[in-house]
Amino acid sequence: MFSVTVRDHIMVAHSFSGAVFGPAQRLHGATFVVDATFRRPDLDDDGVVVDIGLATEQLKAVLGELNYRNLDDEPAFAGTNTTTEVLARTVADRLAARVAAGDLGVGAHGLTGLTVTLHESHVAWAAYERSLP
Amino acid sequence: MFSVTVRDHIMVAHSFSGAVFGPAQRLHGATFVVDATFRRPDLDDDGVVVDIGLATEQLKAVLGELNYRNLDDEPAFAGTNTTTEVLARTVADRLAARVAAGDLGVGAHGLTGLTVTLHESHVAWAAYERSLP
Amino acid sequence: MFSVTVRDHIMVAHSFSGAVFGPAQRLHGATFVVDATFRRPDLDDDGVVVDIGLATEQLKAVLGELNYRNLDDEPAFAGTNTTTEVLARTVADRLAARVAAGDLGVGAHGLTGLTVTLHESHVAWAAYERSLP
Amino acid sequence: MFSVTVRDHIMVAHSFSGAVFGPAQRLHGATFVVDATFRRPDLDDDGVVVDIGLATEQLKAVLGELNYRNLDDEPAFAGTNTTTEVLARTVADRLAARVAAGDLGVGAHGLTGLTVTLHESHVAWAAYERSLP
Amino acid sequence: MFSVTVRDHIMVAHSFSGAVFGPAQRLHGATFVVDATFRRPDLDDDGVVVDIGLATEQLKAVLGELNYRNLDDEPAFAGTNTTTEVLARTVADRLAARVAAGDLGVGAHGLTGLTVTLHESHVAWAAYERSLP
Amino acid sequence: MFSVTVRDHIMVAHSFSGAVFGPAQRLHGATFVVDATFRRPDLDDDGVVVDIGLATEQLKAVLGELNYRNLDDEPAFAGTNTTTEVLARTVADRLAARVAAGDLGVGAHGLTGLTVTLHESHVAWAAYERSLP
Repeated sequence: MFSVTVRDHIMVAHSFSGAVFGPAQRLHGATFVVDATFRRPDLDDDGVVVDIGLATEQLKAVLGELNYRNLDDEPAFAGTNTTTEVLARTVADRLAARVAAGDLGVGAHGLTGLTVTLHESHVAWAAYERSLP
Repeated sequence: MFSVTVRDHIMVAHSFSGAVFGPAQRLHGATFVVDATFRRPDLDDDGVVVDIGLATEQLKAVLGELNYRNLDDEPAFAGTNTTTEVLARTVADRLAARVAAGDLGVGAHGLTGLTVTLHESHVAWAAYERSLP
Repeated sequence: MFSVTVRDHIMVAHSFSGAVFGPAQRLHGATFVVDATFRRPDLDDDGVVVDIGLATEQLKAVLGELNYRNLDDEPAFAGTNTTTEVLARTVADRLAARVAAGDLGVGAHGLTGLTVTLHESHVAWAAYERSLP
Repeated sequence: MFSVTVRDHIMVAHSFSGAVFGPAQRLHGATFVVDATFRRPDLDDDGVVVDIGLATEQLKAVLGELNYRNLDDEPAFAGTNTTTEVLARTVADRLAARVAAGDLGVGAHGLTGLTVTLHESHVAWAAYERSLP
Repeated sequence: MFSVTVRDHIMVAHSFSGAVFGPAQRLHGATFVVDATFRRPDLDDDGVVVDIGLATEQLKAVLGELNYRNLDDEPAFAGTNTTTEVLARTVADRLAARVAAGDLGVGAHGLTGLTVTLHESHVAWAAYERSLP
Repeated sequence: MFSVTVRDHIMVAHSFSGAVFGPAQRLHGATFVVDATFRRPDLDDDGVVVDIGLATEQLKAVLGELNYRNLDDEPAFAGTNTTTEVLARTVADRLAARVAAGDLGVGAHGLTGLTVTLHESHVAWAAYERSLP
């Protein structure tokens, strides 16, 4: 199995609902350093997993919908805690939709899986792994 | 599949038995930077894999049993080489016992797997991955 | 010259005033991984620059005044852009006050300088360096 | 499942064929920081996944065949784009051959899998994972 | 003293002249992860050392003149070993010229110093530090 | 001013005397990731600060005198707390002696300064900076 990973980041504000979150129930923020990992069993004719230029560009586009925002104000997250885990799934699902739409190139239809990891600090990170249809 | 990882560290002394260890047969030491990764297929009602506060606290408790010690003197390791691999399994199994005992919260009963990675330097690390019952 | 550095982090929300900040004029947030570096020309009688336990504890205390907050609501920053540079100076000056107050131990009076570095992402960081009286 | 990883690096020149590579069609170069991860379900009698000294030495030997070279001139890669993905597979397959030949010690015959990751920058890396017979 | 650092990277081919370089006399390559640090004693009216957007953009522009190239073919380096040290100075001097030309904004005229660090691997890096007029 | 840094590591056991050290008064251990930074105002005729091959080799030789040892048993440290700070100075002074002895090549006589940084974990490190005669 092959994989390629590209890294970017976002800087967002948000707050959480639920006693389990302690002081993080207050409005605060985070830098998420985001790693998107694309997987496939075989390489395409160019010898790559995915066009890394398109992968980088599309990850930036997906992150651009979240970046420099207060996620508490985003309709897409109404009634949802925007935890690191939830955001990892959101980024992965939006990237998967772009793969399906052909935004990462026709070669990307050979991708079989995707993992998105969000690093919230030097001591904590979360990931969401999914298959691609 | 979702995962959350928290990081902490220990500083221990030990020595190894067996010619394969070369100079590491002498009493020496290591800083192990320890990553504990918790996995589950779905998030709990708060939108998390595990209460990250409890996960951090319980990892610190497990590591506290090893930290600032000469592992050659620990009864738990009598007759055992405390290699990075063995210590990764020890930390994972002790964390798993705490998950089972409810120390990471009732939500943690949804966890299905655990990986512990011990970084012994910038050029070497070991991991142990196990399921949770 | 000797130095010792300890690392911790904060997660805050804020917004900036001024066209130079572009989209960062919106309410957003950041994780700042914070390195506090203490300097002195000679070691104390214990062979250290500073009691690293106290240094870690006092850095955490200073950061605790900022952590999990919307800095736009903090009176201390009214009318001030809480840029990474400004926050680095704030943390350094508050640590310096604690050194002067004896909170890092009597040995810490031998310290001659302090640098605080705030990493806002994997591709950007800022620092403030000052002397200690 | 246990794993052990060792890290080394190479510095090579190469160029790519195919419009997808854009400016990387020109002769350029890369430092690849290479992580070789060895896996097995149980530890050997010494309590290790593999003799880490031999693993480090054999990784260096495999990388020595590529290091400080223009890969465009290497017969082994004639007609092949030496992408990060292709090089990850090359290093993995050559390490696997050395495991089979006994170069990592007789204990290494218990290894069941191998992953090689090549970091081409702070924002991109690729990996190839394979089983061992 | 304040500083702000931004990070980017280049991927180049080159070779060195001189027995001291051993196998690096052959055509090979490197990824250089490049940190540009800007210094000034006081912040500007926006509370920053430099417009970080412009700093990032100008660093990318300077690096774009080197990226994906064989430096042995660049007239600017004819007769010069493009060592990590030499490239650090080149990047620093070209950034300094852009500061002087106003490309980093009028506020950048308050800058007093600049350091450029090139990381050639996880175990080696070089830096060049200079003042700004 | 130019600098070049090379990285290596040691794994040692030791214990400390003095209530300030708390649990670190017990025999424990550490991995120290060691960065040796060499400085000079101008490059030599080859365009380098120092022969990086010799610098790497001599750092390894200096570290080899400490590696895989219990520092409490080393005569050189009798009556001395082998704190991270003290070890940073020890490594720096021993490297400086090798520079003076010509072990880093005749070109190394142009070096004017040296800094040694010891990373004891992902959250703490110490450094010692000195001039070279």
